[in-house]
Amino acid sequence: MNFISDNTAGASSRVMAALAAANDGPASGYGSDDWTRRVEDRLSVLFEREVAAFLVATGTAANALALACLVKPWGAVITHEDSHIVEDECGAPEFFSNGAKLVDLPGTGGKLTPAAVTRALGYLNEGSFHNVQAQALSITQATECGTIYTAAEVRALAEAVAARRLAVHMDGSRFANAVATLGCTPAEITWKAGVDVLCFGGTKNGAWAVEAVIFFDPARAEEMKWRRKRAGQTLSKGRFLGAQFEALLADDHWLDLARHANAQARRLAEAAGSGGRSRLAWPSQANEVFLILPATTQDRLAAAGVRYHAWPDRSLASDNALREGEIIGRFVMSFATDPGEVERLIATIAG
Amino acid sequence: MNFISDNTAGASSRVMAALAAANDGPASGYGSDDWTRRVEDRLSVLFEREVAAFLVATGTAANALALACLVKPWGAVITHEDSHIVEDECGAPEFFSNGAKLVDLPGTGGKLTPAAVTRALGYLNEGSFHNVQAQALSITQATECGTIYTAAEVRALAEAVAARRLAVHMDGSRFANAVATLGCTPAEITWKAGVDVLCFGGTKNGAWAVEAVIFFDPARAEEMKWRRKRAGQTLSKGRFLGAQFEALLADDHWLDLARHANAQARRLAEAAGSGGRSRLAWPSQANEVFLILPATTQDRLAAAGVRYHAWPDRSLASDNALREGEIIGRFVMSFATDPGEVERLIATIAG
Amino acid sequence: MNFISDNTAGASSRVMAALAAANDGPASGYGSDDWTRRVEDRLSVLFEREVAAFLVATGTAANALALACLVKPWGAVITHEDSHIVEDECGAPEFFSNGAKLVDLPGTGGKLTPAAVTRALGYLNEGSFHNVQAQALSITQATECGTIYTAAEVRALAEAVAARRLAVHMDGSRFANAVATLGCTPAEITWKAGVDVLCFGGTKNGAWAVEAVIFFDPARAEEMKWRRKRAGQTLSKGRFLGAQFEALLADDHWLDLARHANAQARRLAEAAGSGGRSRLAWPSQANEVFLILPATTQDRLAAAGVRYHAWPDRSLASDNALREGEIIGRFVMSFATDPGEVERLIATIAG
Amino acid sequence: MNFISDNTAGASSRVMAALAAANDGPASGYGSDDWTRRVEDRLSVLFEREVAAFLVATGTAANALALACLVKPWGAVITHEDSHIVEDECGAPEFFSNGAKLVDLPGTGGKLTPAAVTRALGYLNEGSFHNVQAQALSITQATECGTIYTAAEVRALAEAVAARRLAVHMDGSRFANAVATLGCTPAEITWKAGVDVLCFGGTKNGAWAVEAVIFFDPARAEEMKWRRKRAGQTLSKGRFLGAQFEALLADDHWLDLARHANAQARRLAEAAGSGGRSRLAWPSQANEVFLILPATTQDRLAAAGVRYHAWPDRSLASDNALREGEIIGRFVMSFATDPGEVERLIATIAG
Repeated sequence: MNFISDNTAGASSRVMAALAAANDGPASGYGSDDWTRRVEDRLSVLFEREVAAFLVATGTAANALALACLVKPWGAVITHEDSHIVEDECGAPEFFSNGAKLVDLPGTGGKLTPAAVTRALGYLNEGSFHNVQAQALSITQATECGTIYTAAEVRALAEAVAARRLAVHMDGSRFANAVATLGCTPAEITWKAGVDVLCFGGTKNGAWAVEAVIFFDPARAEEMKWRRKRAGQTLSKGRFLGAQFEALLADDHWLDLARHANAQARRLAEAAGSGGRSRLAWPSQANEVFLILPATTQDRLAAAGVRYHAWPDRSLASDNALREGEIIGRFVMSFATDPGEVERLIATIAG
Repeated sequence: MNFISDNTAGASSRVMAALAAANDGPASGYGSDDWTRRVEDRLSVLFEREVAAFLVATGTAANALALACLVKPWGAVITHEDSHIVEDECGAPEFFSNGAKLVDLPGTGGKLTPAAVTRALGYLNEGSFHNVQAQALSITQATECGTIYTAAEVRALAEAVAARRLAVHMDGSRFANAVATLGCTPAEITWKAGVDVLCFGGTKNGAWAVEAVIFFDPARAEEMKWRRKRAGQTLSKGRFLGAQFEALLADDHWLDLARHANAQARRLAEAAGSGGRSRLAWPSQANEVFLILPATTQDRLAAAGVRYHAWPDRSLASDNALREGEIIGRFVMSFATDPGEVERLIATIAG
Repeated sequence: MNFISDNTAGASSRVMAALAAANDGPASGYGSDDWTRRVEDRLSVLFEREVAAFLVATGTAANALALACLVKPWGAVITHEDSHIVEDECGAPEFFSNGAKLVDLPGTGGKLTPAAVTRALGYLNEGSFHNVQAQALSITQATECGTIYTAAEVRALAEAVAARRLAVHMDGSRFANAVATLGCTPAEITWKAGVDVLCFGGTKNGAWAVEAVIFFDPARAEEMKWRRKRAGQTLSKGRFLGAQFEALLADDHWLDLARHANAQARRLAEAAGSGGRSRLAWPSQANEVFLILPATTQDRLAAAGVRYHAWPDRSLASDNALREGEIIGRFVMSFATDPGEVERLIATIAG
Repeated sequence: MNFISDNTAGASSRVMAALAAANDGPASGYGSDDWTRRVEDRLSVLFEREVAAFLVATGTAANALALACLVKPWGAVITHEDSHIVEDECGAPEFFSNGAKLVDLPGTGGKLTPAAVTRALGYLNEGSFHNVQAQALSITQATECGTIYTAAEVRALAEAVAARRLAVHMDGSRFANAVATLGCTPAEITWKAGVDVLCFGGTKNGAWAVEAVIFFDPARAEEMKWRRKRAGQTLSKGRFLGAQFEALLADDHWLDLARHANAQARRLAEAAGSGGRSRLAWPSQANEVFLILPATTQDRLAAAGVRYHAWPDRSLASDNALREGEIIGRFVMSFATDPGEVERLIATIAG
């Protein structure tokens, strides 16, 4: 039983079929192919406005390129201390931006609050050449703790940084899972709530390797084509990226895949978050379940060969702290997760 | 008729089949999958020594990461002025290396000579902190002009820089095409001739998007895992890269694909390089044909809808200069090039 | 009355005399002059071991160059959130290191504790290519809050990071002030306590513009000459730097200047830190006094034209928090501070 | 006899006196002092228009900061292969610009020609994301070969790049020497001839360490304050820089110093450039003399203990090539050069 990550799965059958269908004949290179152009058009429709979209192969590249377009080398990006850009990208944002600073803030359940953001801004002097300049806010949707921001919460954060004119970046490697839960339109949870750039993930949601960096104001994308090429992220056989994303967008396939993953997470959260053999670290609102596991439960999971990640405890609420011997285990569901396997996991936890 | 590039084709049927076969069940992420491990093992066998290999999605990333491992930010890379790292990567080597300098040298047919390299080294003071430090030589095999280096030529270049201890990098985005022509072993044309790092291309030769950065001395690869991740080139579903390269290596598929492409180029070069309607800019030794095209031939090609690239004339031999109205046209063959289309191209040129 | 900073003063008369004396005749450039060589020798004597020393013109350059020699671009530097490298250098460490990350920790009075450092290390996975790698600890002596670390405290911090092999950097822009208070030898508070690189400040202590970056293990300095030149910090008329630092070192001039400054601070702290018109934010242990000022005191200072900096309150102990209307004022003494002016300041505060 | 460089001298007596006079009392830091403000005002007067000026401590920093404000990381700077930014700054322009490319062109006497620049531009595709983008032209005045550009020559170069909207940078570390020879106004040889940014050198012309980066269009200077601070080039005791440059500007001291140096060079060039014991490599038009020295002359110079630099021969005209045993020797005159020593040098060469 492997619940390590949503990237342990391959590609969905529709994505594979799209690749096979896209394989015949010549096509223009470097993103000027028909598949990519159709994706760009579709994204404008999906998001209800003209957007500038750029496909890349990894979420790390997507986030780092997006941020590099938003901040100067002496810029600062306010973000959560558990965010992927802080914790899991080996400093890619600093590399791509030529040295911008990530200002890492704590927050329960992986979420930033307007109060914490406002306090941090207070320590970042505006206009003084002695100090790095706050130029972007980065939030993750769904968060690294499996929670989600409501549109109202996103809007409140955007408003907290509006007076200082920070750009708002959303790391949406699990954007599909968040939208599936929220039941809102993609526009409502992004630009209508104040988001300037979205990294819309495909890889964790049924593709091999594709993410879309979406600028809701195309003027902000001016440098992107240079930065993407210079970063080795402009694939020559661009249709490979285009065909994957087109398959995801067709017939709301992206939402169907996310709904399946979310449903498995919900099932686990409901079953495992009670009964004393484990409890929820945070509400499970997308496709991840974080369970606080006593030692005996850990032992049963190990005996059953269940694979999952241990997770840092920084973002626990103070009234839900770890007790002696407990750890947090992360269980991630994907489009490919077998419901039967979730039941076996539940049974293993229950002992 | 599209002869723009070898990246206008899709993937070979064997590569597609390998992807489909690799699609089932969970796999470890970030390059720790079984496909990638098998590729690493196979590359050590193919190159007849223990190598450290890293798969990435683009040739630009491969070259830039390799060079960043070989030179300091104050290092200099001696290379040809027509090389891909100079001309076609939007400064990726400078970006990945944090500002190293490419020293661009002229040379007929896209090839460096030991004399030119030695002369350039003479202007780069060793050890002085005022000057950038020559730390790598980069050669392209096959070159950007469709020519190839023999093993003796590679060795002579390596020897020209040995006293200064430069590392030797080979941009092998068309390595397969060169080996297919040379009929040598991969080892003979690389480390046995003095090459330290090879970027072994898959994308132009039947894959969707995969290149292998191969360090013949694994000690030189120490920083690579950090650099690759930080560059957003560590694909989470690493089996996607591994499965492609494994398919290329199986049954010498990579050589078969290259031989097909080379044969089409040879046919065109033999037919078109005579008769007065066009002449060869340089010998066609791999899968590219560079034809000097008089205006009338250009017109016929345009009328027939033939697509090709115009090419800079810097590397022409002095006795083969462009005459009034002439341009250089680049015609690239791939694994997917239809021999019938080559014949139609020949007929179009012949008029 | 100007207590804004210790850099509002000019140079000491001995430094000026040394410059005048150094002005005649030709001298070798770029740090190969006799003055600089003598300084290098003297520093080895002063620190009781062979050191590698590099003179530069600013503290920002000193810190950033030192850190760039200690960490990779994917490295992390653990430091205090109030430190100069975090707050006052506009991202210079990130620039010089090509994107390393500063991990900013809180701590009362501007001081790091072994517990906080150990906790932070626990969140920085060693060896994983997903994460930035903790490679240096940076402490400030005296701190940005006017406090100092004892040798035992430095040693405890160095021991906290020893198992992870972090290099220990000391930002000593006010090193002289700290040594003057501690009464220890420079060796005792640096390498004997575990410090690997010291930025020994001259500018704030009577020079125009000179800082010495001192590597206690010369092997760590290997890249420094390239980095310094490349950063535009290798002054061509190197004797200008050398003569200043030589004057500081002669006859313990550096300590005399620091003692004067410290004495003024002590006088202010003792007089102003009682009586209800102000209280100490933190103990005044070097040449800076941080006073918590009620509104009425602020008004008197403004009326008297006293210039000082308002200071962030992050590092206040929880039992010494600001009350309604209070701010923290920073008053900095230098070698040139007139004791009479300190008395006038004290009288102004007392009202 | 030391003719190694114009930076082997100290500071002029007027500069020293100005520093002494500037040493009393407190002054605002970081360039907000009165001396610096007066220099900024004076430079606007001297250049007959409102300029934005920034003082830094070294020519390398001046050039690299200026270029970083003019080009993107994917920008290209067209320049001469012998220029200081290519040959003597250890890659500082690449570092400060985060990886821009210097396109190094040959040219007799260290000078670029419009034809060479136009040809180079032809190889740099505008607007294509595959290629670095030509964004600046950098010329050196006086050149590294001791020659100078006339206003007409500067204008012709500026016009050659105008259609591509390149910014024009002038490395003026020896600007004073050029103006002294040309007898023109500073405005005529800079912005009136198409120059956008001038690095106006003080260090080689009688100061300790000060250069002014002058933006003729202040809008181009927008990023400079951040970049300068981040580079550790914003000296805290800014009056040290301001006082030096103010002394240079007062009473045309800068021109007097340059005229002295130029006169010494002229004397040497006239005496030594004939008679067969040496000949001029290039016309001596500023304060440097480049002599082609036969072996016997080299021997006499060595025996007399004359110090000078050997110089690369790349920029020799084809009809003035080195003969067997000859080298190029560079002899540099400064404000402090003793005319008697020049006569002794002439006598030594004459044998």
